[in-house]
Amino acid sequence: MDPFTEKTWETRLLDPSLERESKPRLSGLTMVIDKGLGLTAFKDLLDLAGDYIDFIKLGFGTASLTPFPVLKEKLNLAGLHGIHLYPGGTFFEVAWAQQQTDDFFHTLSDMGFSWVEISDGTIDLQDEERSRCIRKARDCSFRVITEIGKKMKGSVTPVSDLAHTFFKDRDDGAEYIIVEGRESGRNIGIFDSQGGVDTDYVLNIYERVESHRLIWECPQNPQQVAILKLLGSKANLGNIPAQEALSVESLRRGLRSDTFFTFGGYSI
Amino acid sequence: MDPFTEKTWETRLLDPSLERESKPRLSGLTMVIDKGLGLTAFKDLLDLAGDYIDFIKLGFGTASLTPFPVLKEKLNLAGLHGIHLYPGGTFFEVAWAQQQTDDFFHTLSDMGFSWVEISDGTIDLQDEERSRCIRKARDCSFRVITEIGKKMKGSVTPVSDLAHTFFKDRDDGAEYIIVEGRESGRNIGIFDSQGGVDTDYVLNIYERVESHRLIWECPQNPQQVAILKLLGSKANLGNIPAQEALSVESLRRGLRSDTFFTFGGYSI
Amino acid sequence: MDPFTEKTWETRLLDPSLERESKPRLSGLTMVIDKGLGLTAFKDLLDLAGDYIDFIKLGFGTASLTPFPVLKEKLNLAGLHGIHLYPGGTFFEVAWAQQQTDDFFHTLSDMGFSWVEISDGTIDLQDEERSRCIRKARDCSFRVITEIGKKMKGSVTPVSDLAHTFFKDRDDGAEYIIVEGRESGRNIGIFDSQGGVDTDYVLNIYERVESHRLIWECPQNPQQVAILKLLGSKANLGNIPAQEALSVESLRRGLRSDTFFTFGGYSI
Repeated sequence: MDPFTEKTWETRLLDPSLERESKPRLSGLTMVIDKGLGLTAFKDLLDLAGDYIDFIKLGFGTASLTPFPVLKEKLNLAGLHGIHLYPGGTFFEVAWAQQQTDDFFHTLSDMGFSWVEISDGTIDLQDEERSRCIRKARDCSFRVITEIGKKMKGSVTPVSDLAHTFFKDRDDGAEYIIVEGRESGRNIGIFDSQGGVDTDYVLNIYERVESHRLIWECPQNPQQVAILKLLGSKANLGNIPAQEALSVESLRRGLRSDTFFTFGGYSI
Repeated sequence: MDPFTEKTWETRLLDPSLERESKPRLSGLTMVIDKGLGLTAFKDLLDLAGDYIDFIKLGFGTASLTPFPVLKEKLNLAGLHGIHLYPGGTFFEVAWAQQQTDDFFHTLSDMGFSWVEISDGTIDLQDEERSRCIRKARDCSFRVITEIGKKMKGSVTPVSDLAHTFFKDRDDGAEYIIVEGRESGRNIGIFDSQGGVDTDYVLNIYERVESHRLIWECPQNPQQVAILKLLGSKANLGNIPAQEALSVESLRRGLRSDTFFTFGGYSI
Repeated sequence: MDPFTEKTWETRLLDPSLERESKPRLSGLTMVIDKGLGLTAFKDLLDLAGDYIDFIKLGFGTASLTPFPVLKEKLNLAGLHGIHLYPGGTFFEVAWAQQQTDDFFHTLSDMGFSWVEISDGTIDLQDEERSRCIRKARDCSFRVITEIGKKMKGSVTPVSDLAHTFFKDRDDGAEYIIVEGRESGRNIGIFDSQGGVDTDYVLNIYERVESHRLIWECPQNPQQVAILKLLGSKANLGNIPAQEALSVESLRRGLRSDTFFTFGGYSI
């Protein structure tokens, strides 16, 4: 028998049909939310699941509370793993409310961030102002993710409004558009008060826009399962808790019961 | 432009109104519950969020199950970060039930603990015995936190009883008094079976005692939001899960949607 | 006074009645689920709670997604702590559905695993085929854990069927049999949709088989409490989240309120 190596382990166990596109990918993206990982935990996550993570968001305003050397090193590590690290949209909204949007972009750029999120989950941005912010970010050489949806309990954005904003954001240069699900995944956007998914709403959105540009925030396992089964294993998922990164990858590959038949495609 | 340094990052991004009193503080305290952090995770937490944490409680009886070298190093690290590490009240209650209260205090003191929690969430302490225990701890040079409230499901301590015990504990030398919320935050004290906050009860307590001496156990995010909105950003919060330390600090500073307008004070 | 050492800390604080059988134990086993711990977190867990953990399961198919050097080192570390590390049953089921069962056993064996789980939570194994798989694993020198129960929502295996499979698995060489509870602990086997425990069902099973060979999957704290109170502190518990390992040990020893009187045995 051949000597047992990493190659042997990988080739002997995985059906080629279960393999995934390698990074950088254009779909099947996973965005993890970091709402307070220590530096060691961050590194640990990347060493374990770095290949399965495309974006890491520093939740809400935590970027500003993270000690400078820790933040600097997180940026460095993310870069080494081909992961885009960016501050949560609420951080932008705080800067906007303080009328410091320009300073905000310059400081983040100096810090080393190359992606930024523009959202109005808490503040109200009129169309024109939203455009101006996205374009300003682009002028500062940022790649832009936007988010659509209000964070207020029970808030749901009508599909036509969402589609309108989606295409306007794309025109302004946004590369990905997040559908709001918060960190809780309850009573917001596509989720009811129990965290269940409104499948009609999801499908309506999906059919109206460039679906591979959408990132669905779905923090809870049953939500991840529902979105993946509805939209396929290459749906982009966001707000994945750090400890669930490997579980989500298992779901995408049919390596967990919930999607065993859907993506594993096993005939038994 | 100036060279980009830690100072630049901090001063450019934070509105002075969002700054917090530095440690040691007398209010706006955050107590984190450690129910089984490894040593690396503990150090990681302190390096990330040490400035935002005032107390760390070793949940229930876990102190006695923590390997000696790990515990010793946790004490050392907490000290370096100006954080008070102390064993959960149930550990005291076990010692009391074993009639080993004196040994308990001496051993903890020899171990290097300087704070201790006295509670009767599970046992029953009559007024006189409760006083004796607090005074004994003080005699052993401990600084004392007490807890008021039973851990039994559905248990609620009447406000007048709570106020009575509060002032007696203070007379006996307790510096902070915890209002029981358990690690679950459900169906106990200020929380209903869904984890909702009984605001009348909270306000009644708040108005009857020295409120800056109270620590409200509120493990769940909606509870933290409710207490902070009700009592202000300087309410003392307890039983915060380690991974939520940065999120709680974000809430205190209006850097998360839930308290964006309340504490950010942004006019939009 | 004697110099204060590790010995002093341990002997002064613990009532001998609270001590636990040391490893390797035949009952009172704790199986932790690792659904994506980084290597540092894994080591951290073992240094903290290694004495209290008997098995660690790499949840569902995550073993195949774990980078080779990380997996190799997890195996090494687990061995040093006398902990049995094994891949989740769904991983076996994937291999079976791919008709690669033999390759699966050989590869895991070459990798260094010495325990394996045989289950049919998602696939359907007829009695004879189940026997064949268990015996095949035994022939490859594996020690075997089996699992009984379907992962489908609301699924409950009748007690007589469960007992039948239990004794057949034992005949085929299985050393432990897991009662399915999934990672969620809701609406499956012994748990209702709220995660409550069906005590009659549990007791019925308990009385029909060799109970010390059963491992009860109970991911949530109230479930752990319910099973321990029902079956005693030496019940074998499974799917314990890594961060709950110390909490479960506290429950077993009456060091947490929920089992203070049950296992602490304190008369007050």
